[in-house]
Amino acid sequence: MSASHSQRLSEIRHRILTLLLNEHDLVDELLDKASHLSPEQQRENVIHREILQQDISQLHAADLADILEALPEEARLALWSLVPGEKRGRVLVEASETVWDSLTEEMSDRAILQAMEPLDIDDQAWLVRYLPRDLTGRLLTSLEPNLRARILSVMQFDRDRVGRVMDFNILTVREDVTLATVQRFLRKGKSMPDGTDKIFITNENNQLLGELLLTDILLNKPKTMVSDVMNSHPTTFQLDDKAEDAASAFERYNLISAAVTDAQGKLIGRITIEDVVDLVNKENESNIRKMGGISQEEDVFAPVRKSVRNRWAWLAINLCTAFIASRVIGLFENTISQIVALATLMPIIAGIGGNTGNQTITMIVRALALHQVEPGNFSFLFMRELGVALINGLFWGAIMGGITWLMYDNMALGGVMMLAMVLNLLLAAIMGVMVPLVMTKMKRDPAVGSSVLITAITDTGGFFIFLGLATIFLIPH
Amino acid sequence: MSASHSQRLSEIRHRILTLLLNEHDLVDELLDKASHLSPEQQRENVIHREILQQDISQLHAADLADILEALPEEARLALWSLVPGEKRGRVLVEASETVWDSLTEEMSDRAILQAMEPLDIDDQAWLVRYLPRDLTGRLLTSLEPNLRARILSVMQFDRDRVGRVMDFNILTVREDVTLATVQRFLRKGKSMPDGTDKIFITNENNQLLGELLLTDILLNKPKTMVSDVMNSHPTTFQLDDKAEDAASAFERYNLISAAVTDAQGKLIGRITIEDVVDLVNKENESNIRKMGGISQEEDVFAPVRKSVRNRWAWLAINLCTAFIASRVIGLFENTISQIVALATLMPIIAGIGGNTGNQTITMIVRALALHQVEPGNFSFLFMRELGVALINGLFWGAIMGGITWLMYDNMALGGVMMLAMVLNLLLAAIMGVMVPLVMTKMKRDPAVGSSVLITAITDTGGFFIFLGLATIFLIPH
Repeated sequence: MSASHSQRLSEIRHRILTLLLNEHDLVDELLDKASHLSPEQQRENVIHREILQQDISQLHAADLADILEALPEEARLALWSLVPGEKRGRVLVEASETVWDSLTEEMSDRAILQAMEPLDIDDQAWLVRYLPRDLTGRLLTSLEPNLRARILSVMQFDRDRVGRVMDFNILTVREDVTLATVQRFLRKGKSMPDGTDKIFITNENNQLLGELLLTDILLNKPKTMVSDVMNSHPTTFQLDDKAEDAASAFERYNLISAAVTDAQGKLIGRITIEDVVDLVNKENESNIRKMGGISQEEDVFAPVRKSVRNRWAWLAINLCTAFIASRVIGLFENTISQIVALATLMPIIAGIGGNTGNQTITMIVRALALHQVEPGNFSFLFMRELGVALINGLFWGAIMGGITWLMYDNMALGGVMMLAMVLNLLLAAIMGVMVPLVMTKMKRDPAVGSSVLITAITDTGGFFIFLGLATIFLIPH
Repeated sequence: MSASHSQRLSEIRHRILTLLLNEHDLVDELLDKASHLSPEQQRENVIHREILQQDISQLHAADLADILEALPEEARLALWSLVPGEKRGRVLVEASETVWDSLTEEMSDRAILQAMEPLDIDDQAWLVRYLPRDLTGRLLTSLEPNLRARILSVMQFDRDRVGRVMDFNILTVREDVTLATVQRFLRKGKSMPDGTDKIFITNENNQLLGELLLTDILLNKPKTMVSDVMNSHPTTFQLDDKAEDAASAFERYNLISAAVTDAQGKLIGRITIEDVVDLVNKENESNIRKMGGISQEEDVFAPVRKSVRNRWAWLAINLCTAFIASRVIGLFENTISQIVALATLMPIIAGIGGNTGNQTITMIVRALALHQVEPGNFSFLFMRELGVALINGLFWGAIMGGITWLMYDNMALGGVMMLAMVLNLLLAAIMGVMVPLVMTKMKRDPAVGSSVLITAITDTGGFFIFLGLATIFLIPH
């Protein structure tokens, strides 16, 4: 961004955040919670409010959404109260779903629907469906039949399908006209949808015949026929294709927009790189969260009660797995009471196993996401991870075994340490490969909670292996 | 993608993988390692080789790169040997850096440079610089002075700067001509670079004055002057702007291409959405890896020795932290020998702390990446995480404390369990916020190894808190 632009943006941003985070009187007044303000304070608030309003009017909806996301709830609502109705729809579309709740809580259904009026029909369909209150019915009754039919057709698709991601902003022409005619037609329309890099060629039945790049209109002679320069084998998508696959095709073939058709080849809409970028970002963020078992909906500024509720399930699961690991140790209390050093050493075995298992699982989940794991190369993968684990186990196991031997002056204890390390690293490698593969086979997302699961396995396994070996080799029977 | 396209792609993909993973004779022959093949086997290999060659010729470079990435090293080299020289450059650009090593190992410097000839100059600059062998010098001497100067100017920028990501494929016109003239000029050029959605307006000193959308050329009358329809305040970037910031501006303002200027406002090149999508994908993937401490360069098909080398450092760090945690337990061996149950229960405290700490750190790292953490809202964030930790600690601590009480029929032990849980969850929350913030203050990437670090802290802290409390309250002095 030009220095001036990015600098101005960060100045505005800083001014808004400073005002709202420090001027508690201002926030209170904006939320109608102020009582007994001094005349001086009131005058100051008027000035601050004007500054904020001017800043808001200068901000792009996406930037405003960002600032709203970066504010604690009270300050966020105060700023939101200053955002004019006609800008709110755009901001809602750009804002993360984590803040929808707080932004729409105070708005009436009518106010929300009004705010959405300036939006594209696909954005409206998306918002009404996923806003905390389902306003689908109200939106549908307010629309003319033609638009209603379109929205309904979009809504029948799942969130991860092309039919849900696409928009209807397409321009079509026939193939038997000249480029001059096309250009006249475009000029008559006065504007083109954002992100238009091509127009689509259809026949009288609305079957897609091909696509015509804007650059081809500009590069060829006006007398050229559309059919002579159009691309008759474009990359197109069907309504129920997976949005993720479309995104990867966009990246692969460097597309800017592409046609969406129904199963009969009728042109329905288009999908643009803008949709794809949004999708990729959401996908990536949710991947990072899923690995650690954090809910989709949580943001850093969510109120405490919401966070507690969101993390509840994972903590419960984790507590259960920890409890199981602890019961495994409990089995060996007799052994530990005879050799207390075992209690000291056992977390090393478990910790290293968890670390290795997590590395393996991260790699496999990624390989699965890129469709790199095939039945044919599975055994290679498996042997590779086992090989890495064996080498690491022997090397680091020997070191830790040696240190243990020296520290406790007990060679057998050192040997048990080394053997347990090798075995737990092998277990970690096997499970790091198996867990995501089995989850995929069971049609579950291999990323969700995989980290929690592998840690549970390597902890429990590590304790069992180490204390079990110690009981066999170190305790006189 | 249309059903037929995606289906054909997956058929080709499956055929190639099956052939290369099962026909070991074929792979051996392609790698010149075959000896004494039966005539029948030789005939079969000829047929298989032809099938592969035909498949390769039908594949887009990006798809071919994907398949190469999904093969173990031997099979990958066999397939690569069949890829014709003129296609190799494109495939190298599309392939992940993790496979460059194996793909270029057998190629001579000359062969690599030849393969790169059909590529854009910026792709060439990128490849020569980052391929396992640095061929920069050889490439530079082979170029004409004009191109050499350009490449050198790109190379001086770090990998994360706009100057390195941009390309030179720009079209420029003057502002004092009509759209008809512009269109004549474009038509004379016969083609436009991929991803062109606008051309740039410069003065005689090559200063950027504005930009003209292709759609505006099509929508306005041919007699219109460029200066009347051009956008004089475009979003532009400077050579040393951070590429990441440019990517977020592209997403925010839905850009398809944007001008890149030097500090004096002279037009140098452009950056396109295609570059941005690549960047975002790389960024996201490396984030997932960094959290777990996996090296950038590792892929699931890397040879064992390479993986061992890559994971070496993290394992060593992990072993050190586990060793420290173990020494903390060692301090309390006397306490444990009196109450063996402590050894059984302590992993629960440590495990829950690690889980909570990782959840917190994931959220904070994300908030930092989105620039959502400001000095003004820091204390809010901090109190929020403490609040969540306190509630969870009291609730789950009470449950685990109760279970402990029942299991060991020891109320004091249950109380110590509960108190240790609360304290370790608070520690996890504090550290989960502090660790990434301190790393950022020290100008380090907060994502790198944060998971390993927080787990080390909550393990060590958990053992110390639990065993310390037990020593104070449960051991008669």
